[in-house]
Amino acid sequence: MAVRNAQAVWNGAFKEGDGTMTTGTGVSFDFSASTRFEDGQGSNPEELLGAAHAGCFSMALAAGLGRNGFNPTRVATKANVHINRMEAGFRVTLIELECEAVVPGIDEAKFQEVAEATKTGCPISAALAATPINLTAKLVSA
Amino acid sequence: MAVRNAQAVWNGAFKEGDGTMTTGTGVSFDFSASTRFEDGQGSNPEELLGAAHAGCFSMALAAGLGRNGFNPTRVATKANVHINRMEAGFRVTLIELECEAVVPGIDEAKFQEVAEATKTGCPISAALAATPINLTAKLVSA
Repeated sequence: MAVRNAQAVWNGAFKEGDGTMTTGTGVSFDFSASTRFEDGQGSNPEELLGAAHAGCFSMALAAGLGRNGFNPTRVATKANVHINRMEAGFRVTLIELECEAVVPGIDEAKFQEVAEATKTGCPISAALAATPINLTAKLVSA
Repeated sequence: MAVRNAQAVWNGAFKEGDGTMTTGTGVSFDFSASTRFEDGQGSNPEELLGAAHAGCFSMALAAGLGRNGFNPTRVATKANVHINRMEAGFRVTLIELECEAVVPGIDEAKFQEVAEATKTGCPISAALAATPINLTAKLVSA
């Protein structure tokens, strides 16, 4: 149905080198071992994965709520992507999704039910089925 | 070891609404049902996932080659992220990685061996273990 693309270039060795990630629509992010695994100023693949996941979850929650008769006014989601050194190498060990939504007329139980279903059912969550995902979802007033 | 974050906001219903994804370092991408599933001009979670994957793979291949005694001059990777409507909903059905690398002194067999190991072993590939990934890796001269 749709094929989206992106590209990246890495120049040089792992530790001394640096790279650039570029989205299909042309936005570039510089990164290095320092910006990824230490405190260097710059981007890293994990913040892009987090943005993709937060965006997909927010959109999919709006869709799921709508299918249940409750269109949201606003869905805001923060993603925290944890990367840690494991025996096999660096691994994304946890993604925390923290969601706040304004959904006129819905009750807490139905909201949590739809949010939980979205946690596993949104396209990016499904792609990440091998990765632990924690969700906290909160109904808020406008 | 590191926690990276990002956020997204979706305003309104699924079809009529629109959203913004923002990386932890502050770059924002607007998206909508049209830019994600149709031909609308704009971003989508899949191009961000592709950028993350292409970046991670390129960096990890540099690391893997280095561990084998061959530091690359350059690793360039394109990611094509396929999203399709399935019975369960939209799903990322395939990620194609197309890599070209300049690696002084390595032979084809060793290069393919390290590239194949990186296809499953890089952190973002491991996070996406539930998603089919195809790799074509090519040694090129500078």
